[in-house]
Amino acid sequence: MAKPLILVTNDDGITAPGIKALVNVAKLFGEVFVVAPDKPQSGKGHGITISDPIRLRKVEVFDGVESYECSGTPVDCVKLGKTVLLKDRKIDFCLSGINHGTNSSINIIYSGTMSAAMEAHLEGIPSIGFSLLDYSFDADFSTAERYIAELLTQIFHKKKINDNFLLNVNIPALPYDRIKGFKVCRQADARWIEEYIEATDPKGLKYYWLTGSFNHDDTTEDTDNYALEQGYISIVPSQYDLTDYNKIPKFKFLEE
Amino acid sequence: MAKPLILVTNDDGITAPGIKALVNVAKLFGEVFVVAPDKPQSGKGHGITISDPIRLRKVEVFDGVESYECSGTPVDCVKLGKTVLLKDRKIDFCLSGINHGTNSSINIIYSGTMSAAMEAHLEGIPSIGFSLLDYSFDADFSTAERYIAELLTQIFHKKKINDNFLLNVNIPALPYDRIKGFKVCRQADARWIEEYIEATDPKGLKYYWLTGSFNHDDTTEDTDNYALEQGYISIVPSQYDLTDYNKIPKFKFLEE
Repeated sequence: MAKPLILVTNDDGITAPGIKALVNVAKLFGEVFVVAPDKPQSGKGHGITISDPIRLRKVEVFDGVESYECSGTPVDCVKLGKTVLLKDRKIDFCLSGINHGTNSSINIIYSGTMSAAMEAHLEGIPSIGFSLLDYSFDADFSTAERYIAELLTQIFHKKKINDNFLLNVNIPALPYDRIKGFKVCRQADARWIEEYIEATDPKGLKYYWLTGSFNHDDTTEDTDNYALEQGYISIVPSQYDLTDYNKIPKFKFLEE
Repeated sequence: MAKPLILVTNDDGITAPGIKALVNVAKLFGEVFVVAPDKPQSGKGHGITISDPIRLRKVEVFDGVESYECSGTPVDCVKLGKTVLLKDRKIDFCLSGINHGTNSSINIIYSGTMSAAMEAHLEGIPSIGFSLLDYSFDADFSTAERYIAELLTQIFHKKKINDNFLLNVNIPALPYDRIKGFKVCRQADARWIEEYIEATDPKGLKYYWLTGSFNHDDTTEDTDNYALEQGYISIVPSQYDLTDYNKIPKFKFLEE
């Protein structure tokens, strides 16, 4: 089998340490091609740029890896990678991250990292988004690198997976030997309790900064949050059909 | 029962004709409170503003309706509405739109309109996002208004629905008597075929504009796209759990 072509992206920007770690691992498994944002794009969700032009610039960031920085969102990076930069080639795999901070539970819908992976997935490309539960820019990604290599080894070499899929992988910020392994789970039904810091600018006008705390209100044991609390790496197979099938019959009265 | 408090938002901006039409209808059913973007925010998906301050400004746009324009995304509007502006009150309902253009099928994940409604839903507020299949700014919303009034009448007055829910409602751009009614369906599994228009700026640097065509590759008859093609208003009950439950057992080998 020829070396697989692996598209790597993220949402923290092309200079973030997390994507460097992910490129290091991805190089062990195939030919790596990077298209990543030219600035931090955390929390951009599945946003796309439709009313502005988008820029692509070839950069030398990773040794021996063709790389482009993009002025758009993480989803724009995947679209431009597929449609413009790699339009004559088949992308075999997409890896996104490693995100600085968690994307477990409801965070998946706000996450640029996961939305980029989702975009590749819906274009038929098997994709994985990785996040490390450490928000700091200088987080230690070495343990995450080792576990990602183990995960990709299983997926690439055991060849148990041939179809299209999307995985949301979150890694606890623990030393290598304190991580208990991988746990395949569902997205916890938990959410943020928002707060806004209100302040006043020099002109006397108010402004607001989003902050908040995460509410672990889903205490069942088959969730990503539970696995992470227990010291496991959580793996949530994910998809983009938002239909609430259980509610379809309940709303049929509207057809009367 | 006291008049319900209805939060109205959109993604086309507070001056778009679509939100004016929705406010007109919402006023028939409760006390309306508007928090909407101060500029077009189409395609922002579930993006939130985390690295910049957000502004809120009280404006007089709709007769007798307390209204704020917000510098953030549609999701920011809902968060600030709930957490700051209406923090001492219970929001009974959230209505988002009327969007200028379709949000059927995969468009839901890119849509600021639907993401705002989704955000309210995940905070426990029953929510509906409305879209009219006409992208023009001067689209005729009068037919949409009539059908939205009919839909809300059924939901509010028949009281068949008490729990939390999210509906993605798309309305064909047809005259009133050519619309066949409401159809409750699932999200079609269709996607965009992207293209980028490549051009060169005055400095000789390339830039890209996203364009594309919609691929109706899901031809089954229980979908929103099919209902719309048949002249129905499509209603897709939606939710935010992205877990791909069918794939959980397939990836259990990773736990070995």
